Amino acid sequence: MTTDDLLTPLLRGDRRALSRAITLVESTRPDHRDRAGRLIAALPDSTALRIGLSGTPGVGKSTFIEAFGTMLTEQGLRVAVLAVDPSSTRSGGSILGDKTRMELLSRNPRAYVRPSPSSAHLGGVARRTREAIRLCEAAGHDVVLIETVGVGQSETLVAQMSDLFILLLAPAGGDELQGVKRGIMEMADLILVNKADGDLLSPARRTVADYTGALRLLRKRPQDPDGFPKAMPVSATTGAGLPEAWSCMRHLADWRREAGHFDRIRAEQARDWFMAELQGGLLAQLDAPDARARISDLGARVTQGALPPVEAARQMLDWLRQPR
Amino acid sequence: MTTDDLLTPLLRGDRRALSRAITLVESTRPDHRDRAGRLIAALPDSTALRIGLSGTPGVGKSTFIEAFGTMLTEQGLRVAVLAVDPSSTRSGGSILGDKTRMELLSRNPRAYVRPSPSSAHLGGVARRTREAIRLCEAAGHDVVLIETVGVGQSETLVAQMSDLFILLLAPAGGDELQGVKRGIMEMADLILVNKADGDLLSPARRTVADYTGALRLLRKRPQDPDGFPKAMPVSATTGAGLPEAWSCMRHLADWRREAGHFDRIRAEQARDWFMAELQGGLLAQLDAPDARARISDLGARVTQGALPPVEAARQMLDWLRQPR
Repeated sequence: MTTDDLLTPLLRGDRRALSRAITLVESTRPDHRDRAGRLIAALPDSTALRIGLSGTPGVGKSTFIEAFGTMLTEQGLRVAVLAVDPSSTRSGGSILGDKTRMELLSRNPRAYVRPSPSSAHLGGVARRTREAIRLCEAAGHDVVLIETVGVGQSETLVAQMSDLFILLLAPAGGDELQGVKRGIMEMADLILVNKADGDLLSPARRTVADYTGALRLLRKRPQDPDGFPKAMPVSATTGAGLPEAWSCMRHLADWRREAGHFDRIRAEQARDWFMAELQGGLLAQLDAPDARARISDLGARVTQGALPPVEAARQMLDWLRQPR
Repeated sequence: MTTDDLLTPLLRGDRRALSRAITLVESTRPDHRDRAGRLIAALPDSTALRIGLSGTPGVGKSTFIEAFGTMLTEQGLRVAVLAVDPSSTRSGGSILGDKTRMELLSRNPRAYVRPSPSSAHLGGVARRTREAIRLCEAAGHDVVLIETVGVGQSETLVAQMSDLFILLLAPAGGDELQGVKRGIMEMADLILVNKADGDLLSPARRTVADYTGALRLLRKRPQDPDGFPKAMPVSATTGAGLPEAWSCMRHLADWRREAGHFDRIRAEQARDWFMAELQGGLLAQLDAPDARARISDLGARVTQGALPPVEAARQMLDWLRQPR
């Protein structure tokens, strides 16, 4: 196995090499997939911290990432920002498509902001993001922020590829507590209530108190030290609470490392990745142009009632089994 | 293609043949799968009405099915009851595992109640249930009730294989409206608030009014005539509202038939079934004993950090591609 041309500049932290490597893993061309697979397999183990961040539009997610990321770079850390945005094809807009959204961080030499690609489906997004995380780590980033909008299954996906999962919320009346699904709450390690400044300071504190109460009702997880999961107020505009939030994240990560949970969770995530990759690889056969054409024909006959669905599937599976 | 021995008695409406045919489609043995596929493909088109019914434990779902099903048989209709219960393996108990739960209906010569099998995974449950529906229809049932508990994705699955989707609820305070997820509300054609009798009559009526308001806020779907989706009170114990509910279902089905939506929805469902069957067929390769053993070995090496997930998946995919 020859070493990929991208590997050396990537490990040196070359930004152009990193961008080209991410473009490579985003490609669906079979020769690109082969090359990407070999490149990923050649990467050294990671020592970076993977932080998943979810928040619905309007909570100030990009302002938070800009402020939080800038603070980390000022501490000498290198920060990468990736986005998981399965909705970008449908909505037409991408959460990170507009690079100007994080203008400051994008121009910061210690930061790397990657716009999210327009995506085909959630499985593809997951695979590409996992690989992009590994590439960012290999390029020497200490913290990889994986951002997602709070819709559908993307939060579960991001939690499954992060060491810490953070939920960013806006201040709200107590009634709106139910707006956050229980499943999402159960995944969160830290809930940050943003906009804790000016007129919204009091509502933000009340929201923190509400979520602190709600978090106490959740079942205790083995990977949580005392006091976690936890809710805190922050302000992305004034910077208030950001050092405390980072301190919490480090404490949590350190505790998990010492207690053995950090490596255990990563090992489980690696096995999940293997299974997802395996299933994705099998299903990818259906995306080949000749397979698509055949599926379209069979599908039309099924829709017309001319062919039972099970029989159509059998014919397609037989066709896939033929050596080509 | 020789005709299956089960086909003739099945089409005659023989209950033992129906039970044996459903057992056949529930089997994962390859020779059984082959035979089941051929049997399903040989079935005539259906004229039965497929009614999906969801409701969390405690809303009186089995009492409702018993009363509603008995009413239909008294009108001369033949009724089959199937269950989609992806949780049955984990919880140990099955929603229809105890046949005595619907004692009256089970002994009714015009009804067929099938206990839910202990299930492997949602995909398998979906395939088997779709095939069991077709078998029940072929055996001469006019109405097929597909029951599910209100958890996870099982409701979406059942809605995808039903002509009408009904949500059964218990009377509740207005605050609890949010307990029903928006996605479920959007799938419902009819919301029935059960236990509208005795002390609960007033709360039930208020709940109906709350849901009537909530349903008005949803986007109008092309398949809905004026006034649908709709909320109504029923009592499974007194039988109040059951004739009205059935009248509503027939009106909705007739309207959709005349407007062309009935056949369009079935055609879309058939195409979805084809795709699900195709994907399931591909992924089924991973369930073979020798594949499982290999996945287990590779997974262990991934978990130990000895093999990157992508490389492990590549090795497994290569192995699957080898002719055996």
